[in-house]
Amino acid sequence: MSAKPIILVTNDDGINAKGIRALVEMVKEFGDIYVVAPNRANSGKSHSITVEIPIRVKHVKEEENMHIYSCKGTPVDCVKLALNQILPRRPDFLVSGINHGSNTSVSVLYSGTMGATIEGCLNGIDSVGFSLNSHSSDTDFSQCVEYGRKIFANVVKNRLPKSVCLNVNFPTDEIKGIRVCRQAEGVWKEEFDHRTDPLGGDYYWLTGYFENIESDAEDTDEWAITNGYASVVPTKIDMTALSVINDLKQWNYE
Amino acid sequence: MSAKPIILVTNDDGINAKGIRALVEMVKEFGDIYVVAPNRANSGKSHSITVEIPIRVKHVKEEENMHIYSCKGTPVDCVKLALNQILPRRPDFLVSGINHGSNTSVSVLYSGTMGATIEGCLNGIDSVGFSLNSHSSDTDFSQCVEYGRKIFANVVKNRLPKSVCLNVNFPTDEIKGIRVCRQAEGVWKEEFDHRTDPLGGDYYWLTGYFENIESDAEDTDEWAITNGYASVVPTKIDMTALSVINDLKQWNYE
Repeated sequence: MSAKPIILVTNDDGINAKGIRALVEMVKEFGDIYVVAPNRANSGKSHSITVEIPIRVKHVKEEENMHIYSCKGTPVDCVKLALNQILPRRPDFLVSGINHGSNTSVSVLYSGTMGATIEGCLNGIDSVGFSLNSHSSDTDFSQCVEYGRKIFANVVKNRLPKSVCLNVNFPTDEIKGIRVCRQAEGVWKEEFDHRTDPLGGDYYWLTGYFENIESDAEDTDEWAITNGYASVVPTKIDMTALSVINDLKQWNYE
Repeated sequence: MSAKPIILVTNDDGINAKGIRALVEMVKEFGDIYVVAPNRANSGKSHSITVEIPIRVKHVKEEENMHIYSCKGTPVDCVKLALNQILPRRPDFLVSGINHGSNTSVSVLYSGTMGATIEGCLNGIDSVGFSLNSHSSDTDFSQCVEYGRKIFANVVKNRLPKSVCLNVNFPTDEIKGIRVCRQAEGVWKEEFDHRTDPLGGDYYWLTGYFENIESDAEDTDEWAITNGYASVVPTKIDMTALSVINDLKQWNYE
């Protein structure tokens, strides 16, 4: 067992995605790497867990300072298994991504990348999710690695507040700098593609586009990545709307 | 098209669960009911969406003031399909549940019941998730119906603040009253059951128990349901940890 920090690396695009290789490149100088990632793409899996079927784990390979496992489950399953069955001790850090596609605004709620990150945070581990605003298969992650390393170096040095993780997003084109932001208000507008199968059954493909409700708000993550900046949103696991508790206490429940 | 309010009803235990029948019973006096629920159990599905396969929808039946559809997808898929393909107009309210099992504390993050509720909230609909702290198949929901109706009547009368939904949990035994609470701090402790298949492959069953980190905090949902009260937690979709933004801006990103 090494005295170096242990860094758990996961994602939602699966262990063979280009983004997770870039993420390992970003953080490997900071410690011993354990990759525990889904064996296939798990986009849109959010914070879901596998409860009805067992989860399979495969030890893929060992390299210098690197231990690689794949898991037939969701990103959150990967984190739970890593923490409880695979790692020799509690990790010092968790990083997730680099996701192929952004996870700004309310996409944090749908994202498997952020699901895994929040699961790390829940378990008291300093956790960061990284996403790039591009789905292109020949995406160049080199700038993400450079800027992501600056952010991660700060996490290593300053550590994160309790019950807070980071949601980092990179813009499509050249990165002008880093901005600490809040989650933009927005909503996914769905446009289902309705089809009928040869037996007359209805089926629907989910499509859609993101609508940014406050596109002029310069303190948001959506504004940042749209304008060439990497966004850093501190993200918390307590979803209570504290400001309205007193109002709700005035309701008449008789 | 009726002038009565439209209420969208969904859940994560599936359209045949006892809990969703109790939920219809709770809210049917308030409007026209559209049930759009998964065709089977979707526990632990969180806010996940189906992106890789098409979603099937079945029109199950029509009753007086009640239209029932089942969907081969996640709870969030059900809400998206209902809003975009099934309902004659935007619904006035969304209710989800009554879940068989509590969704207090951080379980809000894993819950399909709350995933559907948050999806309604994202779309600007007044949305409430209901859960009962019991997995028993012969659970009696009559008290939940009575107390849930008091809470829902307040939502109809007072409406909810923007971007806030309610997470309501009922205790196992007799309900003493209703308490407006915050989400308790806690974590699920996993204990995987590790087995080996006949071909030598490893597989794991996810088990675990909830650890309440602040069991004495009387203002939390966990305290409420443990002490016989129904808990009402206002839950918001902005996960930004606003209080730490200024600290993170002091980090050195050079």
